[in-house]
Amino acid sequence: MSFDEYRWFIEQSTPSTAHMFGLKRYLCDKQTPFQRVEIFDHDLYGRLLVLDGKIQSAAYDEYVYHEALVQPAMLLHERPGSVFVAGGGEGATLREIFRHPSVEKAVMVDIDREVVALCREHLGEWHRGSFDDPRLELVISDARRHLEENEERFDVIVVDIPEPLEESPALKLFTRQFYSLLQERLAPGGIIVLQAGDFGTIFFEAHSAIFNTVRQVLPYVYSYHAFVPSFNTEWGYIIAARDFDPGAVERGLIDRRIAERKLKLRFYDEETHRYMFALPKDIRNQRDGVTTIIDDDELLTTF
Amino acid sequence: MSFDEYRWFIEQSTPSTAHMFGLKRYLCDKQTPFQRVEIFDHDLYGRLLVLDGKIQSAAYDEYVYHEALVQPAMLLHERPGSVFVAGGGEGATLREIFRHPSVEKAVMVDIDREVVALCREHLGEWHRGSFDDPRLELVISDARRHLEENEERFDVIVVDIPEPLEESPALKLFTRQFYSLLQERLAPGGIIVLQAGDFGTIFFEAHSAIFNTVRQVLPYVYSYHAFVPSFNTEWGYIIAARDFDPGAVERGLIDRRIAERKLKLRFYDEETHRYMFALPKDIRNQRDGVTTIIDDDELLTTF
Amino acid sequence: MSFDEYRWFIEQSTPSTAHMFGLKRYLCDKQTPFQRVEIFDHDLYGRLLVLDGKIQSAAYDEYVYHEALVQPAMLLHERPGSVFVAGGGEGATLREIFRHPSVEKAVMVDIDREVVALCREHLGEWHRGSFDDPRLELVISDARRHLEENEERFDVIVVDIPEPLEESPALKLFTRQFYSLLQERLAPGGIIVLQAGDFGTIFFEAHSAIFNTVRQVLPYVYSYHAFVPSFNTEWGYIIAARDFDPGAVERGLIDRRIAERKLKLRFYDEETHRYMFALPKDIRNQRDGVTTIIDDDELLTTF
Amino acid sequence: MSFDEYRWFIEQSTPSTAHMFGLKRYLCDKQTPFQRVEIFDHDLYGRLLVLDGKIQSAAYDEYVYHEALVQPAMLLHERPGSVFVAGGGEGATLREIFRHPSVEKAVMVDIDREVVALCREHLGEWHRGSFDDPRLELVISDARRHLEENEERFDVIVVDIPEPLEESPALKLFTRQFYSLLQERLAPGGIIVLQAGDFGTIFFEAHSAIFNTVRQVLPYVYSYHAFVPSFNTEWGYIIAARDFDPGAVERGLIDRRIAERKLKLRFYDEETHRYMFALPKDIRNQRDGVTTIIDDDELLTTF
Repeated sequence: MSFDEYRWFIEQSTPSTAHMFGLKRYLCDKQTPFQRVEIFDHDLYGRLLVLDGKIQSAAYDEYVYHEALVQPAMLLHERPGSVFVAGGGEGATLREIFRHPSVEKAVMVDIDREVVALCREHLGEWHRGSFDDPRLELVISDARRHLEENEERFDVIVVDIPEPLEESPALKLFTRQFYSLLQERLAPGGIIVLQAGDFGTIFFEAHSAIFNTVRQVLPYVYSYHAFVPSFNTEWGYIIAARDFDPGAVERGLIDRRIAERKLKLRFYDEETHRYMFALPKDIRNQRDGVTTIIDDDELLTTF
Repeated sequence: MSFDEYRWFIEQSTPSTAHMFGLKRYLCDKQTPFQRVEIFDHDLYGRLLVLDGKIQSAAYDEYVYHEALVQPAMLLHERPGSVFVAGGGEGATLREIFRHPSVEKAVMVDIDREVVALCREHLGEWHRGSFDDPRLELVISDARRHLEENEERFDVIVVDIPEPLEESPALKLFTRQFYSLLQERLAPGGIIVLQAGDFGTIFFEAHSAIFNTVRQVLPYVYSYHAFVPSFNTEWGYIIAARDFDPGAVERGLIDRRIAERKLKLRFYDEETHRYMFALPKDIRNQRDGVTTIIDDDELLTTF
Repeated sequence: MSFDEYRWFIEQSTPSTAHMFGLKRYLCDKQTPFQRVEIFDHDLYGRLLVLDGKIQSAAYDEYVYHEALVQPAMLLHERPGSVFVAGGGEGATLREIFRHPSVEKAVMVDIDREVVALCREHLGEWHRGSFDDPRLELVISDARRHLEENEERFDVIVVDIPEPLEESPALKLFTRQFYSLLQERLAPGGIIVLQAGDFGTIFFEAHSAIFNTVRQVLPYVYSYHAFVPSFNTEWGYIIAARDFDPGAVERGLIDRRIAERKLKLRFYDEETHRYMFALPKDIRNQRDGVTTIIDDDELLTTF
Repeated sequence: MSFDEYRWFIEQSTPSTAHMFGLKRYLCDKQTPFQRVEIFDHDLYGRLLVLDGKIQSAAYDEYVYHEALVQPAMLLHERPGSVFVAGGGEGATLREIFRHPSVEKAVMVDIDREVVALCREHLGEWHRGSFDDPRLELVISDARRHLEENEERFDVIVVDIPEPLEESPALKLFTRQFYSLLQERLAPGGIIVLQAGDFGTIFFEAHSAIFNTVRQVLPYVYSYHAFVPSFNTEWGYIIAARDFDPGAVERGLIDRRIAERKLKLRFYDEETHRYMFALPKDIRNQRDGVTTIIDDDELLTTF
C-alpha cells in the first residue's frame, strides 16, 4: 500500500515529537462510557488496540508486552494457584496466566464491559479463548472497589490498566492506598506486578513516582523493562513482594521452571530476565532522585 | 512553541511507520560530495545531526550512543594505547576515547572533510575540543584505503559510520574483506567495536548479517544494544576480539577499571554492561537464524 | 478536539504537497467490488465521502459542487423534462435536479450498489430523500452499457463520476466514443454537463484533455469552474450542446428563470454564472495548448 | 525526490486542516526584529517565502498574486505617474508597477530592512532588478508613520503587507484611521488597492471586516479575488477610489490599455478581470452580513 492509501494515527508524545502509524482499515471506533475504543489494522504491526488515543497493544509484539508483564511474577512464584488481574481487557494477560498448570483460578476485574466485548470479538489472536477458560471469574466492575469488598487473597496480582488520563477511574489504581490494599490481598509468598509506564528517560517521571510509592508499602520492589517496537520505546514494569526478595534469584531457576511447566515462550527466559532486570546507570540515577509519593489526595498527574 | 511554528523532519522507517521531529530552527542544510548534511535544533532533543535523512545523534542522548559504542571496548582492554576510528565525524567518539589516560594516539579517518568541519563548528557539545587534542591524527580519506595502505596496528578499533545507502562508499566498510583487514590491523589483545544498526526485531536483518559476517573472521563476537530515545529504538553494536573472549568478564572488573581510570560516565557502568550484553530470546532466535555473509561481491542492500 | 484526538486523512496531491484532514470519527470503511468507501466526520467540513482515497464531497460545501454541476445546465435549458445521471451516488445531484418543477423523470445509473446504499444511509443531508422521489428510475449498472442498450433521449445529461484510477470502469466514461454516445442520447435542444477535474494550473491536464475530446464531438463546448473549499482548489466542469450555444446567454435570463422556477439556491445565480464562466488568461492558454484526444484505445492516464 | 528526503512545512489553517509542503532545501531561517523569515525550495512551487509561518509567495505562481494585486488598479488609472507601496518586500509588486511606462516614481515603505535584503538576495526571479530601478524611492520605516509625516499624494496606493499577527506593527495598517489617511494621500482620480486575506468561505471574516471598514471611508469599494494554487485557496483583494467608480468599466477598456502600454501579462486581461470581479452568491451574502469596523481602538484579531 502507498502513503495515500493509509489513514494516519499520529501519536504525539510531546509538542515536538510524534509517531505516525499508517492504518490500513478501520474495524471499530466507539465511545464507551469510559473511553474511546479504536481497533484498526496496520501493515506492519497487524491489529492495533487504541484506548483514548494511546496504543495498548499490537498483534505484532503483544507477546513481548504480555510475557514481560506476566511471566516473571508467575515464574518467581513457586506454585501460583490463584491470580488476580485488574484490567487486562485484551485477554492476553489471562492467556499468559493460564499457561501455568498450577493455576486453579483467575479473577479478572475490568471496568468497561464494552472494551472486553470488543476485544473478545476482534482480538482472537490475543486472548485465544481465554475468556472461555473455566478457571476464569470475569467481573465487570472497578478493580479497587472489588478488592475492597472481597477479602480473597491471591498468589499473584497483575495490574494491567491503561495510563490514567484526567478524571479517569484508573487514577485511583495508582496510589499508595491502592498498593496497600493489594498488599493485604496477597497470599503468603505472593507477588504483585504492575505495568508501569514509559521507561525512556524522557517520560520517566510516572514510572519513578509509581516505584517510589510502591516502595512505601512493600519491602521488596524492582523496576524492570522491555523494548516494545510498536511503542517506539522501552516499557516499564514494577514487581514487588512482601514476604521474600524476588530479586534474589538463583542462577538457572527461571529456565528450570520454564522447562518444568513446559512453557513455550517467545520472549522470556533466563537471559531475557537478566536483560529486563538490569538498568542503565542514567535510568537508575533519574529514578532514585524522585521523591513523589502518589496518594488518593495527590494523584498522578501525567504519565 | 506550537505545531505551526515547527518544521517537520519525518523519518519514515517503513511505508506505514514514521517518526516526526518538530524542528525549531535550521542551522545548516548542505550537500557535500558524499552526503546531505543537516543540522537543526529540536525542542526536546536539542541539536540534531542528520546525514542523508538519517539521524546520527542528538545533543539530548548522544552520551548514550557514544558511551555504548566506545566504553565497553576501551574498558575491556587492559591498557588501550592506540585507537583507530573509522568515521566518527561528530568528534564524540574521540571524546570518549580521550577520557582514557593510557591513550597515546588516536587515528581518525573520515571521508567527508565538510562533515568534519560542520560538526566542529556546530557540535561543540559533542566533541568538546577533541579535534584539538594533540593525540589526534585526523585523516580525510576512505578508512578502508587508509588501512590497506598503512600497516600500523591498534589496541582498539572503532567503526562509527552511517548506514550505507545505495552507492555509498560506506558499503565497502560492511564486508567480510573489510573485517579481515581490521583483524590484521589489531595489535595483540586488541578489540574491535562496530555500530551495527537497528536492534529492534523489525529492522534486525542488517545487524544479523553484520554479526554473521564478523563471525566468519574473528573467533569471539558479541552483539549488544542500548536504547537511544531520539532513535525511538534500541541500537545495536558488535564487539569482537581475536586473542581473548571479551564476553568472559569477571564480576567487578568494569566498575573497578572505571574507578581506576577516574572516568565520569553518565550511561555506562557494570550494571549497564549486563543490560547491554543480555539479549531477549526473540532477538537471539532471529539473529541466529540468519546465514547471510556480506562480501565485497555481495554487498549489504538494506540497513 | 486536539491534534492527538484526530486521525488524519492525508490527501497527497503530488510527492511534495498534501492536504491533511483531521477526522473526528469513522462511520464506514468498506471495500466494495468497485472501490474503497470511507465516510467520516470532520470538525470543519462535517461528514466526508471518500472513494478510493479521493474526497468526493463534504457536508460543508457540497452545495457548491452540486449546484455548480447541475444548475447551469438545468437553467440554460428552457424546460428540462427528462434527465440522465451517470454516477451521482451521493444523491445530491438528484436533489438539485428535482428542484426543477418541469422534471418528469430522472434516470440515474451507478455501477456500485453498495456506494448508493451507504450514501443513502449516511448522507441524508446530501440526498434529502431524493432516492424516494417517484420521478427517479435508479439503475445499478455501467452507465455506458446502459446508454448503449437503451435509445431513450434526455434533455439534460449529467456525468458525475469520480476520477478514473487505473483499471477503473470509469475510464470508459472519459472517451471520445462515450461523448459521441451522449450526443446521440441528447433530445433536441439538450445539454450535457460533466464534472471535469481539478481546475488549478498544476493538475490541469485532465481537464484540458476532456475539453479537447468533447470538442471533437459537439460544436458548443465551455469550461467553467468553482472554488470548493474542502477540495482546496478550483474544480472544473464542462458544459456542451449540439443544437444551440449555451455560452450566448442574454443578460438577466438566469436570475429570471431562477425566480420563475422558485429555486432557493445558496451558490448559483447570474453573477456566480459570470464568475464560473470567465477564465483566467493562464488557464485559457494552458488549456488551448493541449491537443490530447481521449479515445477508447488511448485512455486518460492521470487525472 | 521521495517523501523521506523532504522536510515538511505544515501550514495548519484550523485545528483539523493543514497543508503540507515538502521542502527540498533550506536557504534561510532568520529571526529579524519584526518576524521570522524562511526561504526554501519546493519541488513544485519552486522558491517559497514564508514570514512568521505564513506563505507570502511562491516562484510558481507569484505572478498570479502580484498581477492580481497591481494590474487592475494600474490599468483602471488613466495614466499612473506616482505609486505608493506599503510593504511589498519581495519586490514583485514593484516589478508590476514599473512595467507601466507612465510611472515616474514609486515610493516603497517596508518596516523590515532584513526582509528586503534577504528578498533582494534570494528572490531575483521576483523583483528582477526592480530595487535598482531609478524611479524607486525605498524607505525603511513604518508605512503609516511615513504617510503621516509626508503629505505627498499618489495616483495609485498598493498595500501589500502580511496578515497581522498579535502585536504586529501591521495591525495599525488595517484600521479605519489608516484607510482615512490613505484616502487623504490619494491624488485626484487615484486608486487604492489592498491585499485582503483569504477569500474562501471558511476564513472570510477578515476580508469582510476590511471591506466593511474601507466602505466607511471611501465611496467606491470592490472585493475581488484570484485562485493562487500555492495558497490552496482563493485570495481576496479590495480596490477603492474616491473620485470615480472603478467598477464601471466599459467593455474593451482593459484589453485596449494592456495593448497600448505593451504589457506582457500571464494572468491578467479583460476576461480575467471579469472572473476576479464577479463574486459567488454565498460569498456576497457572507460578506454583506458583516458589520465589523476595524478601528485603532478595536483591532482586527484574526485573519
